[in-house]
Order: sequence, then C-alpha cells, then structure tokens
Amino acid sequence: MLRRMSSYSGQKLATVVKELENFAPISWAEKWDNVGLLIEPHREKQITKILLTNDLTEPVINEALEKDVQLIISYHPPIFKPLTRITQSHWKERVVAACLANDIALYSPHTAWDKANGGVNDWLSEAVNRIISIRPLEPELGAPPGTGSGRFIETELELSQIVESLQKHIKNSVQIASAVNHQPNTLIKSVGICAGSGGSLLKGIRADLIITGEMSHHELLEFTHNNTTVLLCNHSNSERGFLTQFSPKLAECLKGTCEILVSDKDKDPLVTVAKNLDKEKNIFVDAYIQ
Amino acid sequence: MLRRMSSYSGQKLATVVKELENFAPISWAEKWDNVGLLIEPHREKQITKILLTNDLTEPVINEALEKDVQLIISYHPPIFKPLTRITQSHWKERVVAACLANDIALYSPHTAWDKANGGVNDWLSEAVNRIISIRPLEPELGAPPGTGSGRFIETELELSQIVESLQKHIKNSVQIASAVNHQPNTLIKSVGICAGSGGSLLKGIRADLIITGEMSHHELLEFTHNNTTVLLCNHSNSERGFLTQFSPKLAECLKGTCEILVSDKDKDPLVTVAKNLDKEKNIFVDAYIQ
Amino acid sequence: MLRRMSSYSGQKLATVVKELENFAPISWAEKWDNVGLLIEPHREKQITKILLTNDLTEPVINEALEKDVQLIISYHPPIFKPLTRITQSHWKERVVAACLANDIALYSPHTAWDKANGGVNDWLSEAVNRIISIRPLEPELGAPPGTGSGRFIETELELSQIVESLQKHIKNSVQIASAVNHQPNTLIKSVGICAGSGGSLLKGIRADLIITGEMSHHELLEFTHNNTTVLLCNHSNSERGFLTQFSPKLAECLKGTCEILVSDKDKDPLVTVAKNLDKEKNIFVDAYIQ
Amino acid sequence: MLRRMSSYSGQKLATVVKELENFAPISWAEKWDNVGLLIEPHREKQITKILLTNDLTEPVINEALEKDVQLIISYHPPIFKPLTRITQSHWKERVVAACLANDIALYSPHTAWDKANGGVNDWLSEAVNRIISIRPLEPELGAPPGTGSGRFIETELELSQIVESLQKHIKNSVQIASAVNHQPNTLIKSVGICAGSGGSLLKGIRADLIITGEMSHHELLEFTHNNTTVLLCNHSNSERGFLTQFSPKLAECLKGTCEILVSDKDKDPLVTVAKNLDKEKNIFVDAYIQ
Amino acid sequence: MLRRMSSYSGQKLATVVKELENFAPISWAEKWDNVGLLIEPHREKQITKILLTNDLTEPVINEALEKDVQLIISYHPPIFKPLTRITQSHWKERVVAACLANDIALYSPHTAWDKANGGVNDWLSEAVNRIISIRPLEPELGAPPGTGSGRFIETELELSQIVESLQKHIKNSVQIASAVNHQPNTLIKSVGICAGSGGSLLKGIRADLIITGEMSHHELLEFTHNNTTVLLCNHSNSERGFLTQFSPKLAECLKGTCEILVSDKDKDPLVTVAKNLDKEKNIFVDAYIQ
Amino acid sequence: MLRRMSSYSGQKLATVVKELENFAPISWAEKWDNVGLLIEPHREKQITKILLTNDLTEPVINEALEKDVQLIISYHPPIFKPLTRITQSHWKERVVAACLANDIALYSPHTAWDKANGGVNDWLSEAVNRIISIRPLEPELGAPPGTGSGRFIETELELSQIVESLQKHIKNSVQIASAVNHQPNTLIKSVGICAGSGGSLLKGIRADLIITGEMSHHELLEFTHNNTTVLLCNHSNSERGFLTQFSPKLAECLKGTCEILVSDKDKDPLVTVAKNLDKEKNIFVDAYIQ
Repeated sequence: MLRRMSSYSGQKLATVVKELENFAPISWAEKWDNVGLLIEPHREKQITKILLTNDLTEPVINEALEKDVQLIISYHPPIFKPLTRITQSHWKERVVAACLANDIALYSPHTAWDKANGGVNDWLSEAVNRIISIRPLEPELGAPPGTGSGRFIETELELSQIVESLQKHIKNSVQIASAVNHQPNTLIKSVGICAGSGGSLLKGIRADLIITGEMSHHELLEFTHNNTTVLLCNHSNSERGFLTQFSPKLAECLKGTCEILVSDKDKDPLVTVAKNLDKEKNIFVDAYIQ
Repeated sequence: MLRRMSSYSGQKLATVVKELENFAPISWAEKWDNVGLLIEPHREKQITKILLTNDLTEPVINEALEKDVQLIISYHPPIFKPLTRITQSHWKERVVAACLANDIALYSPHTAWDKANGGVNDWLSEAVNRIISIRPLEPELGAPPGTGSGRFIETELELSQIVESLQKHIKNSVQIASAVNHQPNTLIKSVGICAGSGGSLLKGIRADLIITGEMSHHELLEFTHNNTTVLLCNHSNSERGFLTQFSPKLAECLKGTCEILVSDKDKDPLVTVAKNLDKEKNIFVDAYIQ
Repeated sequence: MLRRMSSYSGQKLATVVKELENFAPISWAEKWDNVGLLIEPHREKQITKILLTNDLTEPVINEALEKDVQLIISYHPPIFKPLTRITQSHWKERVVAACLANDIALYSPHTAWDKANGGVNDWLSEAVNRIISIRPLEPELGAPPGTGSGRFIETELELSQIVESLQKHIKNSVQIASAVNHQPNTLIKSVGICAGSGGSLLKGIRADLIITGEMSHHELLEFTHNNTTVLLCNHSNSERGFLTQFSPKLAECLKGTCEILVSDKDKDPLVTVAKNLDKEKNIFVDAYIQ
Repeated sequence: MLRRMSSYSGQKLATVVKELENFAPISWAEKWDNVGLLIEPHREKQITKILLTNDLTEPVINEALEKDVQLIISYHPPIFKPLTRITQSHWKERVVAACLANDIALYSPHTAWDKANGGVNDWLSEAVNRIISIRPLEPELGAPPGTGSGRFIETELELSQIVESLQKHIKNSVQIASAVNHQPNTLIKSVGICAGSGGSLLKGIRADLIITGEMSHHELLEFTHNNTTVLLCNHSNSERGFLTQFSPKLAECLKGTCEILVSDKDKDPLVTVAKNLDKEKNIFVDAYIQ
Repeated sequence: MLRRMSSYSGQKLATVVKELENFAPISWAEKWDNVGLLIEPHREKQITKILLTNDLTEPVINEALEKDVQLIISYHPPIFKPLTRITQSHWKERVVAACLANDIALYSPHTAWDKANGGVNDWLSEAVNRIISIRPLEPELGAPPGTGSGRFIETELELSQIVESLQKHIKNSVQIASAVNHQPNTLIKSVGICAGSGGSLLKGIRADLIITGEMSHHELLEFTHNNTTVLLCNHSNSERGFLTQFSPKLAECLKGTCEILVSDKDKDPLVTVAKNLDKEKNIFVDAYIQ
Repeated sequence: MLRRMSSYSGQKLATVVKELENFAPISWAEKWDNVGLLIEPHREKQITKILLTNDLTEPVINEALEKDVQLIISYHPPIFKPLTRITQSHWKERVVAACLANDIALYSPHTAWDKANGGVNDWLSEAVNRIISIRPLEPELGAPPGTGSGRFIETELELSQIVESLQKHIKNSVQIASAVNHQPNTLIKSVGICAGSGGSLLKGIRADLIITGEMSHHELLEFTHNNTTVLLCNHSNSERGFLTQFSPKLAECLKGTCEILVSDKDKDPLVTVAKNLDKEKNIFVDAYIQ
C-alpha cells in the first residue's frame, strides 16, 4: 500500500498516551474495567493520525486501515473478556489481529472518561439546557472537584422541554418511561445522569428524571413506581457525541502534531423504525430524523 | 363499597388453578423462576371475575380493586426477590398487601407460559407471516411436541416485510440492529424468537434474524457481527399481546363461569417519542402510532 | 364481627413504632436478623390494643383475632426465611395472610431486645439472686452502657441455690449439665447468660456457670469438660418472662392510650413429663409444676 | 501399675475390627462422618478387654485406664473436627494422647450403627411397644433389607402410652412438644424415629409422632404446626441403651475370647431437675427417677 | 527483510492444523488447558517452514524471525493466563505481538500430546530400556488403545540401570529421591511415568519407581515413605526430546511440502552446576556432561 | 530398653518452649501454618535431650527413639493437613503415634524461624559472602528490626562467585536458571532470598539474582525473562544448615541443662546423580561431592 505523505510531524506513542492520561488517569477506571493502552505494536511507529470511535467494530477497523491511522482510541475496550487465543474465528480477535498486523496501537479510556470533569457524563448533561447546579453522583476520592461517577443536576424545566432538547443533543430518537404520576408538563427539578447502562449506578437514587443509555424492563418499573421518569438514548447514543467535543481538545494537547479523526462508520447498532424504509437508499430510517 | 351483582356463577380458586396448570404445568417453569399460586387469601372467595395483566403495577392493582376481581393472573411474578417484610414502603409490598387485604388471589405463570405450545413465544412468532417450519429452541423433555424455550422458524421473507408485520403484530414501534451486511431487502430464511429478554437463551444461535423484547448493547454487537439482525419490541410488548389471545381460551376452559378481563392499565413503561407530545391530551405519542 | 367499643384513645402505628425503637433501636439487631415493622396493613388503623407474644404461633394469631388487636409484637420474627409466596399451605404464610386480611400490624424486635439495657438478657439475669456485677458479653459499640449481647455476672452462690431460683424465675423445670467436677454445693462465682440458643455466643467463654435456653449435646460436653456447668431453660422459657415485665413499661411509654395484652396462648412447645399426665384435664404436666 | 492376669485368650486388633465391620461396614457411614479405627497404637497389643461407651469423655477414659482395657468402642467419634496438634490443653486431645500413651486402640461406628439392621435406631424403636410395620426412612442402597437412616413405624397406640413406654425404655425423663391439636389420648398411627439429633433427617416427614434425641425450638414449632408431636429423650439417652444390647452380641462374635464391658461413667450430660437435689448424696436427681 | 526462496511447496495453515489434530485431537487435552491454534495471522500465508519448540521463549521467537518460519508449534501454550492486553511490557505479550506482526501462526498441543499413543509420555518411557508391558495411567475414554494420561510400565531392572539409561535418554543430569529402603541395586518391577509436573497425576499410585520432570519437597517425602523412588529430569527435559522424534513424522504427514525445524535455542532453564564453569566459553556446565 | 544416665539436669517442657518462643514467637508464623508445640505427652517428662531436624521422617523418628530424646524440634511441622485418625497406615500418623507412645514432645517453628532475625533466611543469606546491606522482603509489623519474610541483599559480586560460595555454604550441588542475558561473570548487585519454596513470596520482585530451595518451571521462565537469575538449592538444603548454627545457641539459652543433638538421618530427599554410583558403598553420589 502506498502511504500518503502526512503534513503532521507526529508524536511518539508514549507521548500521546501521557497526554490522554493527563486528561483522565486510568486509575480512575472501575476495578472491573480494562482500560489504558491495550495494544502496543511489535514495530513502534510515529503517531501522525489518530481515529476516535465509540466502539471498535469491524466497519471501524476497516475505516482505520483505509485511512492509515497509527492509533485508535476506542471508548469501549475491544478486549473485555480476556483472550485465550487470537484467531480469525471471532470478530474481536480479528480486530486485535488486524491492529497488530498493521502496527496500530489501541487505547481505551471507558470509565476513566466517564468520571472526568468535562468527560462523557458532562457532555450528556448538556442535554439539560438549564443547569442550576451539577455534581458527580459518586465523587472520585483524591481527584479534582467535578470528577466522579454519574452526575446529579438541579434544574427547573418541564419534562417535555428536556425530552426535546435531549433528542436534539443526541440527534436521535429517545424512549421515555414516565413515572406513574408524571405528565409532559410536570416540572422536573432534579436529574440523574449516567452514560451507558445506568441500572446499577443509579439504583435507589431519588430524582425526578433519569437520563441514561439503556435499562432493563424491571429496573424501569422500579423507577416509574418511585416517581422517577426515565429517558433512554440507546447505549452508545448516550456516549458517542462526546468524541466530537473531545477531538479538537486532543489536537490542542498534542499541539497540532497529529491529525485527529472521528470515525464515520461508528454508530449505535439500534435504529428505531417509524415507517419501513427509505426506498431510494434501501436503509431503515430512525423515527427522529424522519 | 357496593358490590355489583355478577351474572357469573363462579368457580372455586382451586378449580381455576387446576385449569391454568392444565394449560401449562408450573413444573415447566425455569428453576430460578417463582410461579404458580403466589397469593391465596385468608378468606376464601368464589372466583367470578379474573383480571389478566402482563405486569402487576400499581395502576393495575387499582384497576383490580375498582373492578372488584377475585383473581389476578399476572404473567410476570410480582414476588420475585423473596420478601422479608410486607409494608407500605415499597410498591411490590403494597401490591401484595392490597391483594391480601381485599381477598384477591394472585397467579403467575411466567416461564411456564413461555414454553407452552400455543403460549407466549408462539404468539410472538405469528409476527412472521410466512412460517415454513417452527420448533422450540430448547424442547422441554417429557412435554408434548412444540413445548419448550424460544422458537426457531424457517421462512422466506425480506427483512423489511418482517419489520412491517412485527410493528402491526405488537402495535408499537420496533428497534432494529442490522447485521453488518444486511439491507432491508435481504432475504431472511431463519428467525430466532424469545419473548422478554433474549440475551442468554439466544446466545450463540445461528439465525438470519432474531426477534426479542430487549437486549444489551454488547449482546447486539455480538449478533450483528455474526450476520444476525436483531429486532427489539421492548420487553413487555413482546409478551402482552398473548393475553388477548388467551382470554377467550380461559373463558372456555372455565365453561363461562367466570368473567375474564384484560387489563386496560397494563402497558410497557417505554414509549418511543417521535415528536414531542399530543398537546391536547398532554401525553407522549409513540413513533409508530403517529 | 361486632367490634366492642374501646376506652383507649389509641395511637397511630408510626407513633407506637417510634416508642418501640426508642426502647431498642433496630440498628442494634444482628446482621442476619429480620426485625422491626414486618407487616403494615393496606388499610391503616388506629392502634388501641396490642398483643405481646414470644412466638406468633397459630393459637396466638387466633387469640389476636378473637381479642381484636391492631398490633402484634412478636419477639421472634414470624418471617425469617424470606417468603416467595403467601398461601394457605404453610403455617407461617397463613399467619402473615391473617394479619394482612385483618389489618393487623406486626412488629418483631428479637436481637435488638436481647441487647437492650433492661431487655431480655437482663430479665433472665434476675434469676441469679445475688449479682455483684453485671456487664454485656459483647458490648454494643456506640450504645449506652449496659447494652450488648449476652451478660456476664459476678456472684457468690452455691450451684443448687441458682438452680432453685432459676426454676422459680422461669416457672418451669430446668435441665442441668454439671461440669465434670461440680457438685450441688460448688460455689459459683461467674455466670454467662444468653437467652435463646447460647451455643455460638457463649463458645469459649470462661465462667463457672452458663444459663441459656437450648444447647446441643456436643456443645454441652465441651463446656462440662472446661469446668462450666450449663443450665438449660428450653429456648422460649429463657425469653418469655420478659414480656410480663415489658408490658407496663410500654403502656407507660404510650401514656395509657393503648391496652397492652400478654398472650395467654403463647408457651414453650416443650413440657418435661415426669409422670404421665393429669387425667382430669387430659394434659401433660411439667415436672416442675407437679 | 500391676496388671491383673486375664482369663480371656484375646484377639488381634485386626480380628476385632473385622467382626465390627461384619456387623456394620463403615461404608454405610455418612460422608461427613469420621468412623472406623481412629487410633491404632504404636505397640500392638492382644485385645482381651473391650470397653463400650456412647461418648469418650474424660471420666470414661479414666475408667478405661483403671480397668486396663486394650480397645475402646466409642459410638460417637472423639475425633470429629480434625486435629492440628495433640496437647494437654484440650480434653479431646488429652483423650487421644492418653489412648496412644497407653496402647489403647479406639474404634467409632457412629452413623454406620445408626443404619444397621438391629442397630441404634432399631433399639430406640423398641420404645413403641406395638409395631405393626417398621422400615428405614432412607434405605441404604445395596445393603440388606432393614438397613438405612432413621425408622418409620406403623402402630396404633395412644400418645400417653408411648410417652410412658419411652420413659421406661430410656430410663429417663422425656420432653414432649404436642402437636397443636393433640391430646394425651390422641391415637398415634405413625412414628418417625431418629436417634441423636433428628432435625435434618426428619425434616418434612409426615408422621403423627417423632421420637428423637434433640431438636431446636424452631424445628419443634414447624412439626407441632404440621400435626406432629415430638418426643425428646436428650441426645445420648436416645442412643446409649443400645450398648447393653450390643455387648453380649459382640462377645458371641468374638467367641468369648474377650471381656466386653459397658462403661459405668458414660451418661448423658443433662439431668432434668424437678426438686433441687438428693441432700444425702449431694447430687441432682432426674425428674423421672424421683 | 529479503526473503530467501524456499524449495518447499508449502501447505495452507488449515491443512497443517488438520494433520496435527489427526495425530492428537485437541479434544484429548485437559479441561484447564489452552490448546490448538492459538494465533492465526491477519494475513494468511502459505506454510513452508515450521519451527518446533518446547517453550516459546524470547530467544526462540527471535530464532523464528531469523529463520523466517510461518508456523511455530510450541508444546507449552504461550497463552495460558488469558490476556487482557498485548503490549511490549511483558515477555508473553511481546511474543504474541511478534507473531501477529510477522504473520506467524502458533499451535500448542500440550496435554493432547501427553496422552497420544507415540506422544510425549511414550517418548519418556523409552528411558526404561526393558519394557515388559506399558499402559496409560488414566486411559482416555473413546480414544484408541494406548492413549491417556501418564504411563505405567512393568519391567525388571536394577535401579542404577534405569538411572543411567535415563541420563542418556534425556542427555542431562538427573536427581534421585530414593525410597527409604531402596539401594542402587534394588530390583525395580514397576515404573510410573509423567512428563512435566507429575505431582497431581501420580498422587497415590503404587510403583517402585517414578520418572517425572519436577515434584515438590513434600510430595517427594510422601513417595519415599511409600517405598517409591522418584527420578526428576527437570520439567522440560522430561518433554523436549520428543520433538526430535516427532519432526520427521510430521514431515512425512505433510508429504515433504514443509521444512520442519527443531529449535536450537529452546532448552531447560535449569543447569546443575558441578564445578563452577567452563572458563573458556564462560558458561556453566551441567554435571552430567562434565 | 536400658536408659543411660544423663549428666544433664534437664528442664521442664514448658521452660524449653518458653525459650524457643523467646527466639521466635509463634505469632510471627503465617496464618496458613501450623506451628508451636504440636505434641505434648500424656506423661510429662523432664527434658534432658533434644533432637533438631529439618523434616521428621521415619529414619529420624527411629534415630530419636534410639537416642532416647524427650523433645524433637522439627523445622517443618509433621502435622500439616489436620488428622482425622492416628493409625499405622500412613507414615505421618506413625510418627505421631511413636512420639505419644514414647512420651516425646514435638515442637515445630517453621515460618516463625523463617522470619526471625538470625533465623533461617539470615543463615541462607550468608552464602552471599559480600553483603553491603540486608533487609526483610516483607518486614513483620511490630517485631524487632530485621524480622520478616525473605531477605533482600545489596552486594557486588560476579554471578560465578556466588554460585561457588553457595555450593560451599549448603555443601551440595546447585541448579542455575540464568537470566536471558546473564553470563557467569555478570555483576550481581541485588539478591532476593527465600528459604524453601520461593515462588509465591518472590513473585514480581526485582533483583539480579534469587536464591531459594525450589521453584516451578513456569515460575523460572518468568524470572529469567525479567533479567533475574535463579539459584535452586533443593528445598531443605536451603534450610537445614541453620540447625547446626542454632544448636549451640539453644544450648546456651537453656544454660547447659539439656543436650542438643542435630539429626544424622535428616537429609534432603534429592541427590543429583553425576556418575552412576559409588560401587563400594552402593550409594548414589551427589554431583557436588564427586
């Protein structure tokens, strides 16, 4: 493959990793998580092009090969269940093999970014467009103020206003589980936020509203019977938008030495079908975009 | 409260239970499940009115009190985590207390109905409107043919045809996670069915399409990378329609001695918001119905 | 049923519970225990009559219905193994159903009362009628002095004197396991007390004498070989007498607004038969009373 | 110590062990049990004198030393919790050290004898003096008929008749927990038998009456609410009488080569005190003997 | 790197794997083991050169790169503890990364080869140069005769004869733990064989002699007190010699299409130092070779 | 047996034990260990002769009986797995029975001696004949300085110098696993020491060299790939030499009242065979001695 000349001077991998951990140290990640530098190539390369993605799916690894990047930052760790082998039989092993064969490094921040001040949960919180106060649900001990798991927001908005602004923020349809006594015009004074799967972190919190990615049926009933309405974005739609916000920040940290791309192919696997399909493009269209 | 005279002669509770177990013996239920007669009142009453519901929420128990029923059949067991006390602090305890205070019996079939021939999974399978063959994913040993967990269907339909007929069957919007290489006109030849949460039963099966109630983000990615498209109905929308089908069947088994009602208040907690709301009724409107 | 007019003004349930927890907070109870308000009726009632019992057996629940009480305080929690259903098949479920059907609340203090200063173990300690000093075996951290599990007593009495006074205190026969070298006239200088089953709390303590409710054969041999004599009262006979002592105390706390009854039907299941029976009454007679 | 000459020719230890295992193979013992030859001396001795005991307490080991026996058969295994050391600090270690220092072998049959046809449970069953039929509660697979755990007896006797005959059979007082609806003249048609601690083996059985050694308060309430009366003998009083019956049987098996003694010092640790004591002998007197 | 032309026509990886599993199916491996094709490159290559090694150490991976092989067969699996990342920090991750970066496949047979008829244990058994009979210690169910774990040999040789022939067979020094009563001229009639760590497989077997790779001090004392002498070869010296025997066999299976090399760099980490060192070569010299 | 008159005045067992615990309190031992006075005879004897041994094997217990000692101090506890019986079937039970039958006490210090300042690890450290600094790897909290598990030494010696001095110190052959980049003349600056089995204590430490008794193949590879050479002595050869050093120390503590012997029969079970055997004596000869 003919490599195009890059106008970026590049950085050593170690330097990029150092900048990433300046933003959110991996020591903030949950104990059960697997974060940080997950793949380091056998042949070290200068990093000139970096691809950001929420999930490192096969369409995304193909995009990375095509765009000739040296580092992928995947919010979700592609290696979660530890590997006993690396073959071509399973898609996660194929992704790992493709990285190592092509000297692509891989870094995953996951729950470290969830906790960071200015991280994923703060991005999701911006959907509430009148924030009186905001704080982590579980502050991270020894970290700067504003760091921690989830967010708790004081506000004063009608439920329907937040639904509308959330749809705009994530640019996708939203599902609502209304509290037993809530109506669209109910006044919301407190909101719990948890990007991704909120069921276990949010369990038992008292808030008028919860915004998260996904939650099970039985967890939903528990909340709606406790006077809490729940808004679901789909798992990765509650996280992905952060990458666009983070991209220029990272470029700046690296002083313009690297090109930072946000994946075109990375998207939530789920689409809510309203009408059947866009006959011309032969694709299913999300209810919201319609 | 003034009790209206009933024109139904009624049955003993034991007789109704016997008929229910004729349809689907509780021995078919999963080991982790809690099924059968869960509440038997201190003061035995003749059963003349029976309420069918998918979930015994507080709106539904209020409907039951208002309609003066003597037996509730709730597909999901309201007692799942065993109770250490029965107070007014938690909605599930309030539901149990309300039943016992008002001499209402409670029966839950759950996974016994999932497995029954002509049960919940067979009802969900009807969404595939061209069935070449159908069989349980895991047949129940010692039970009549057609009994078991999940269903596996052979068919020949385009993906978009099944999406459309599923929307009509459940009367709600549907979410789709397309397999990496699928388009709306992809020909579907095999379908895996699991009402409710399909993640663990369906794990590892080989089918072009899966229809279930809910599934996590990481389970979805696993399927879409293995050439399987997944359709999600929301948990209880994949189950609830069965009640309407079962209601006349039960009336017949009881030879018209009891009135059988299907709950008006029972509905899935989730609504997919398309546009913000129906301003006149002040309610959120599902994308599909729109 | 015609309800007799009560001359007691009554109290709200919450007020009675508050007074009970003033005497012994439920936070004192052991972690494995299930204490506090275990049943709270669907229809709240003013509490005018309270029944105290050691065990909430079926004869006692019948007594409660007959005497038309609104609250039962049962020292032992009738719900210990959590309930997966509430039917008429098992006596503990029948008791729970009877309470809820008749709007009777249920409160159980158990190990919180064991630890209270002036609680069950202090009542049992009064059997030693010369107490030089007394202290809990395991003091409760953060609680007032004299609070904790079990009791340790310094005394100077002959063994036979304590046996005799214990018989009088519990008004029942007593079983004795003499230490290998003890005689009736052995001087007892230290006594370990544990109402109920003393085996695990008392394990390894050094005392001339132990008074408890029940203990296994192999535990007894361990003590008698370590120079400790053991007196067994039968489990509930080591606890029940406290109720008579507590009854006026509770009446006073509630300022006479409620009538406090001690159950007539509550008794230890065991009777020691010496001679066969009282032919006239056709009952077995305890060896002590004879 | 001057050893008296014995008129018994004696046997090798291995021969005696073989005869014992002919009566009840140790393979019949429960998995959790520790049975068979537990101590085999460093210096092998001819066995001329054997001491039978229910519990190998310190008074009994002293009796053994005084009577100069070469083998002790202790129904209960003196080593149950495995030993990490053998010192003079704990009575069970002292017993083991005394055996080994004096070349005394030790054999324990325990649950193997419980199951044997003609063993401990059959001896206890003789207290029911009208046996219509008798069978093990849990037959031992592959063993001769009549072998197994516990016994189930069909009879027709009044409750008070069995109480009286049990007192005579064990020569001690008895405790009775009457079923909620039983009187002394209730007709007993079925009896469950379990020597020792019957709680776990007897759990859930259906019988009018249970005879066992000891049982906890909460187990007793469970039985009395299920129409079963329970008679307690105290643990070892439900077992000990078998030794007197077994002694001549063993003598015969060994063809008179060994002298067989039943311990004088072995007795249940518990005595039920009715009146205080026998002033002359300065001992507590059991309620029954009085 | 300039690749030398190979005169071997080569094979597809799948074909080589098939031949390897013809010799010893991976289904024979122990449950805890991790065997078979562990690394399959992202870019498939024709296999013309194969390197056999006992352990895939860093000297061996360097040899593989230098010799430009496409497949390594490493008896011990280099991935045993599953990997959560693949970086340059740990030697096992470096080995995996080097394989994937250079399109080298990796296959590990381990316990499948131990069990194979004509496998590792049979090779080790050849050290006993008079075999009257030989059979697996634990035959593999459903496999051809002679397949299974360990070997049991009947022979008639003096102990010193076997020691000498074992030294020659493994070409290394040997350690001996003599049974309490054995001398060099003791006649050995039975031998237990277990390549690698024999402690758990050989536990409790009855043999005059055991030959294995390594065993702990406390395991050795157990055997020497049970009349069993143990010969230790060091772990990999009890396995490595098989590779030389297997190499031509594999060449033949592949019909000469691939070149088969046995690693030069693979050796046991341990050397027994006799005198200090070979001053000229500046290396430690094994006691045997001296 | 005719007992020779002893010129030693002797001590009470309790006094000797007290002196031993002055040297190294048993509270220092690891939690999983079984140390202190393990056997205390039924008949107390004055201690005039004490035998020190590393392992209490059957040859050593026979030596003890022959030499008529009253106390054995065995570094390794002969009772490790707790005993359920003490018969003549297993060598460890035979050893215990022999002690108790002959009134021999037994004391085991094990890991308490490993940690002691001046204990087993300090003795092994003396093999490094130029110690710049020395400290425990894991200091014992609350104990005097220099107490703790393992040792860490700073030195400056060539590898071959340490190998030679270790051979002399333990008077046996040594095995060496050279770090991937080490040669005999590599300069060693840091040494980790752990008598016995060093695998778990030494895991992950950073040192140029490790000296221990035994270590598994896979542990060795881990060290040699992390630039650490390992020297193995065989388990008990890394411990035994301490006894000779401790013997006069103990004599002094006991003020000459007891004779202290070091066992003649105690030796490591393993011998490294160099040439076949010493034909005259008919024994295998260690490579080192040759």
